[in-house]
Amino acid sequence: MLLRKAIETRARVEGDLLKVDDFLNHRVDVELFPEIGEEIAKRFTASRPDLVLTAEASGIPPAMAASQAMGIPMVYAKKYVGVGERYTFAREVSSPTKGTEYRVEVARRVLPPGLRVAIIDDFLAGGRTAEALGEIVEEAGGEVLGFVFVVEKTFTGGRRRLEAHGWRVDALVGVASLENGEAVLEPE
Amino acid sequence: MLLRKAIETRARVEGDLLKVDDFLNHRVDVELFPEIGEEIAKRFTASRPDLVLTAEASGIPPAMAASQAMGIPMVYAKKYVGVGERYTFAREVSSPTKGTEYRVEVARRVLPPGLRVAIIDDFLAGGRTAEALGEIVEEAGGEVLGFVFVVEKTFTGGRRRLEAHGWRVDALVGVASLENGEAVLEPE
Repeated sequence: MLLRKAIETRARVEGDLLKVDDFLNHRVDVELFPEIGEEIAKRFTASRPDLVLTAEASGIPPAMAASQAMGIPMVYAKKYVGVGERYTFAREVSSPTKGTEYRVEVARRVLPPGLRVAIIDDFLAGGRTAEALGEIVEEAGGEVLGFVFVVEKTFTGGRRRLEAHGWRVDALVGVASLENGEAVLEPE
Repeated sequence: MLLRKAIETRARVEGDLLKVDDFLNHRVDVELFPEIGEEIAKRFTASRPDLVLTAEASGIPPAMAASQAMGIPMVYAKKYVGVGERYTFAREVSSPTKGTEYRVEVARRVLPPGLRVAIIDDFLAGGRTAEALGEIVEEAGGEVLGFVFVVEKTFTGGRRRLEAHGWRVDALVGVASLENGEAVLEPE
C-alpha cells in the first residue's frame, strides 16, 4: 500500500505530532490518492452512500478521492473563527492540541434530509471535528453510514468518542504510538 | 463544457456574489473535475510545471484535478488568522469582501528553490490571495509559469493586479457582470 509506505518512510514525528505535510496535508502527492479513494470506497460497498462529507481543508483531498471512486458528490464543511454564515447546520468545536475554538458549518441547502452519508477525514485523534460532522448529518435528517480516516492515532480517544454514538469507525492506517521520534504503525 | 453549463444553470447571484456552492466550493460535483483538470493542464502543455500551488480550502479541488491531469504534486497554502507556523514563506492578505485579514503560508520544506509553478484557484476577483501566492513562489526562488482560475470575475481588477507582475493569467470561464440577479458570462 503506497500510503503505508509513505507514512513509514516520509512522515516525521515532532513531539506528539505526526507530520505528513510532505505528501498528505500540505504538499499532496496525488499518486497516493487513487488508492486512498479505492480503499475508502471498499468500506462502503455494502452501504451505498449518497454523499461524502468532510471538513476543510485537509479532509478535502481524501474526500475528493473517495467521492471520485464512488461516483457520488462530496461536501466539505467550512470552519469559521467567529461569526459564520446563515442557514447552516453548525457545531462549535474546541481543539485541545491547537488551543483554539472554531465553528464547523454545512449549508442547509447542500444537506437535504434522507441522505446516506460517508464521513471522511485525514486524521482521527480526539475526534471532535468528526463528531461535529456526525451530529450535523443526524440533525439534517441524514444517516451516518460510518467514518473512514486516512490515519488514526489509535492511542487517542477519538474512536471511542465516535463509537459512543453508535457509529462505525474505520481507518486505512493506524498509528499505535509516537515514541522516541518514531511512529509505530498498527499491523495491517 | 460541463463547467460552463453548471454555472449557467446552477450558480446563484446574491448581491454582488456569484454563489457556486451547489457544485464547486461547498458541495463538490466531482464529475465536473476531470474536465477542469484537463482544461487547466492544456494551458501548461508548453511550460511543463513541476508543481501546482493553490490556497486552502476552495482552491484544493481544482488544484487537485489539475495535479492529477498533469501527474505532478500539489501544494496548498494554509490560511491563518493570527499567529501562523514557523519556517514558512508568508504574506498578509486583506479581503475587502469579507472585511478580514489572514496570513497565507507555505512551509519552506515543500517549496525548494528552482521549481516551475502553476498557480490554480477557484475564483479570481480582487486577486490578492493569488498575488500572495505568486510572491511566495518568487521569494522561494521558483518561477511563476502562470495562473489559471476556474472562474474569473472579469469586471474586477484581479487580472490587472497579477499582470502588473508580468505573470500570465487565464480562466476557464469569465463572468462579465452580475446584474439584476443574473450572471452574464463572457463568450467562450
